[in-house]
Amino acid sequence: MLGQMMHQPLLISSLLRHAERHHGEQEVVSRRVEGDIHRYSYKELAARSRCLAKALATLGVRQGARVGTIAWNGYRHLELYYAVSGSGAVLHTLNPRLHADQLAWIADHAEDQVLCFDKTFLPLVEVVAPRLATVRHFVLMADRDQMPADTRIPGLLCYEDLIASQDDDFDWPEFDENTASSLCYTSGTTGNPKGVLYSHRSTVLHSYASALPDALNLSARDTILPVVPMFHVNAWGLPYSACMVGAKLVFPGPSLDGRSLYELFEAEGVTLSAGVPTVWQGLLAHVQSQNLRFSTMRRTIIGGSACPPAMMEKFEDRYDVQVIHAWGMTELSPLGTVCVLKGEQLAWPETQRRTVQAKQGRALFGVDMKIVDDQGEEVPWDGQSAGELLVRGHWVMDQYFKGDKSQLVIKDDQGWFPTGDVATIDAQGFMNITDRSKDVIKSGGEWIGSIDLENIAMAHPGVAMAACVAARHPKWDERPLLIVVRKPGAELARDELLAFYEGKIAKWWTPDDVVFVDAIPLGATGKMLKNQLRERFQDHLLERA
Amino acid sequence: MLGQMMHQPLLISSLLRHAERHHGEQEVVSRRVEGDIHRYSYKELAARSRCLAKALATLGVRQGARVGTIAWNGYRHLELYYAVSGSGAVLHTLNPRLHADQLAWIADHAEDQVLCFDKTFLPLVEVVAPRLATVRHFVLMADRDQMPADTRIPGLLCYEDLIASQDDDFDWPEFDENTASSLCYTSGTTGNPKGVLYSHRSTVLHSYASALPDALNLSARDTILPVVPMFHVNAWGLPYSACMVGAKLVFPGPSLDGRSLYELFEAEGVTLSAGVPTVWQGLLAHVQSQNLRFSTMRRTIIGGSACPPAMMEKFEDRYDVQVIHAWGMTELSPLGTVCVLKGEQLAWPETQRRTVQAKQGRALFGVDMKIVDDQGEEVPWDGQSAGELLVRGHWVMDQYFKGDKSQLVIKDDQGWFPTGDVATIDAQGFMNITDRSKDVIKSGGEWIGSIDLENIAMAHPGVAMAACVAARHPKWDERPLLIVVRKPGAELARDELLAFYEGKIAKWWTPDDVVFVDAIPLGATGKMLKNQLRERFQDHLLERA
Repeated sequence: MLGQMMHQPLLISSLLRHAERHHGEQEVVSRRVEGDIHRYSYKELAARSRCLAKALATLGVRQGARVGTIAWNGYRHLELYYAVSGSGAVLHTLNPRLHADQLAWIADHAEDQVLCFDKTFLPLVEVVAPRLATVRHFVLMADRDQMPADTRIPGLLCYEDLIASQDDDFDWPEFDENTASSLCYTSGTTGNPKGVLYSHRSTVLHSYASALPDALNLSARDTILPVVPMFHVNAWGLPYSACMVGAKLVFPGPSLDGRSLYELFEAEGVTLSAGVPTVWQGLLAHVQSQNLRFSTMRRTIIGGSACPPAMMEKFEDRYDVQVIHAWGMTELSPLGTVCVLKGEQLAWPETQRRTVQAKQGRALFGVDMKIVDDQGEEVPWDGQSAGELLVRGHWVMDQYFKGDKSQLVIKDDQGWFPTGDVATIDAQGFMNITDRSKDVIKSGGEWIGSIDLENIAMAHPGVAMAACVAARHPKWDERPLLIVVRKPGAELARDELLAFYEGKIAKWWTPDDVVFVDAIPLGATGKMLKNQLRERFQDHLLERA
Repeated sequence: MLGQMMHQPLLISSLLRHAERHHGEQEVVSRRVEGDIHRYSYKELAARSRCLAKALATLGVRQGARVGTIAWNGYRHLELYYAVSGSGAVLHTLNPRLHADQLAWIADHAEDQVLCFDKTFLPLVEVVAPRLATVRHFVLMADRDQMPADTRIPGLLCYEDLIASQDDDFDWPEFDENTASSLCYTSGTTGNPKGVLYSHRSTVLHSYASALPDALNLSARDTILPVVPMFHVNAWGLPYSACMVGAKLVFPGPSLDGRSLYELFEAEGVTLSAGVPTVWQGLLAHVQSQNLRFSTMRRTIIGGSACPPAMMEKFEDRYDVQVIHAWGMTELSPLGTVCVLKGEQLAWPETQRRTVQAKQGRALFGVDMKIVDDQGEEVPWDGQSAGELLVRGHWVMDQYFKGDKSQLVIKDDQGWFPTGDVATIDAQGFMNITDRSKDVIKSGGEWIGSIDLENIAMAHPGVAMAACVAARHPKWDERPLLIVVRKPGAELARDELLAFYEGKIAKWWTPDDVVFVDAIPLGATGKMLKNQLRERFQDHLLERA
């Protein structure tokens, strides 16, 4: 027997309609590529998004068609978020930091029909454009007077002309809530990029969960500045959740330096920001050097990688800004966990609280997680036992877009997605990532996390860089091997470094040996290429024995 | 083109599974019918709910079958919430305050197969039981040693025996999220009660929205005491939303007097409570007479009827407890609006803020509202123009359960539900109920709200009770007529009372005449039966003219 409630699809257009009707005067403020500040209301956002939807239709964009963007965080990008998905087409956000070869591969794979981009990226698009097989229209997201007099892109369209060509008399279509809404590619260290195809349903449910008090805690009293780019996993969903709650939005455009961000925080009364740790380093350096304070900012969401404890302490103790750790991934829309303390933990001593706050956090309602051993059996939630982290839920990817057989990632018969991370979960449900699963060292059936061992080595004054990898061992299968680059002039020897581990970690976690090298190979994003080290040194312990 | 995200149904069982896995140690505390305090964890709640689901299956409860409850707020009632709906059956909460005739009518109409009840209601059920055509099993929600030695109910079962008869090895079934989950009857002043049949989807979406920061603002740091009964529109959804966020739950059982509530608030560290104004009168009287304070309670949700301004001021100014006005109805699961200020309003002067806080609030994302005139045209959101309030959304009823043609309530072609209320909405989106639509006075095409006129009369020291009703008028169609019961000994005359309106209201709203009566007829719940007054006095102005 079915219930007798109204049945409306969960659609992205309903977020915009709600913002327009119930928070119509709320502001959206953008620092533009041109350098000036642009401001308007949700009412105007909604009206212009309707004009844009009509204009896209005249360009032949039909339901399911992909519309690419290469753009900073700004109001026009936001209009594209709503106009494209709201029409039933698919918003495909491309990452301008990728190499032109990768951009061309991705746009071709996605079969983008239209490509909209900020003026910053005109040179990049001019290089890529001739190689794009499917793109029929290129749109420069700029005023008419910003259009280049001369360009290699044939028939380049002006975004503002498109908007001006239409009135806003348009009703958002209704369709199946499982319809694709947006597409984001994740580029691993190996193989081609893989696309994650979100749906309207997954996006709206993610918005609800991410706005909850124990997640990002979003309300109409917030002024949100997403530093995390809108080309990177939907800016953690903030363009959607802000409309859901009627928060003021502030977009930094291309200016992500400490001074520009700080000015925007203060001028617009930002209460909440979100980004990766590296962005905050520049901000904190600026604030510290100028002896400034945050007048209104009280919370910052940090994700992408772990927040260094020193940064967390500085934000909280010195600037009264609460740091909220979050963890997610492209395949998760992105939010999986947020680190917000439970009631009983509020009374814990500070050091104990800080230990919890350094973790990636607990699961939002709507996703579940588990950690499993090599046999796929669940590992206990004791804060010590590590296992591969698996997730499932309403906004977790099912399959990659146009994925081939090698990309069928579903692991067990209950449909859990393997994240590729190794983690512990404590009795309170707080998850802590200890390693990537390909980097973990499996010693006699127990798992040793390489990240901890590297952090300890890096704390030694004689160490410039350290990687810990699995080396084959006759008795234990694998044992940790430390690969170290000494600091210039440092006289550090093997035994001294191994002795440095005493008391810092379980004795059996201590690396079996140390190899000193001149350099550790790094990838394009600065990450250590530990797979190369593994290949080179995998027999080191066998040879030594 | 569909998105490629995991597809899981939105099921009530997933709320319990989340609470068990991620907040397993969180407490559920209940004052029992027996008078003692019972406490256990979400883990135990989940395990016992699984035992109960298996036991219900042995009683022949299949998917879609209705299981009735007549019970206070307590852990066993909570187990029934999850065991019945989680199994795919339908939880039908009956209101013990109804007359036995109504209870029998409702249970028959719902075709309840099992009826579970607290010991308080044994005498009531003994009266009703012989008249119930469909109930096959009666279950007393009590320990074995609490079972009556002798009862007129044949084959009366003991709830704890049912639980003890099963282990908890049970997987919640998966099914269509639109499946019926629960049933609640609303009893209007006319006609038979009408059933609202909620779905799993509507319930889970309502939970998300109601927990948002701008709604009830629920987190794992909260200790929630729902005074609003679980037999009354799902206790405003708190049994579900508490599991979603992992909040501690405290149930008051049958003891709703001020002293009992206050003791529980203090002993259990309650941070948030929810109920109708009358309950808070008793609580405030107790706290005031004993010169007490609230140590932990900081927010109270008030709904059901408008919170008197004096009560709001007392809570906030004297006890530092924030009063949050909410509005809803059985047909809305129940939440439609919550009155939480927007950012710019926080800086307003106190009197202006209080004016907003006295309203019913703004719409949660997931429901929309509009106000319309007699022609169904939308009325402006100016805080002045009144219109009939219509709503639609994910948790708004579509049709009444087994409703006949006379109960087809859908009003316009876009599927808006007419609430039967008349309201204004201001430019910020705050809705304020000014009347019931059947009570509004339509004077020359303009609407005059009877509630305001009654409140002014009630403020006069000589008035004991006042009702304002529409009386027929040759020129204006209808004009307001005031019906007044004087206070004992008061000498109040017509002209004096009408003069009392001067400056308090638009001149043309002033009632045309006053009729003094000895008594105003009241319904069972204490509401004035204004339809009787209308019938009696509808020609008063014509006769006078």
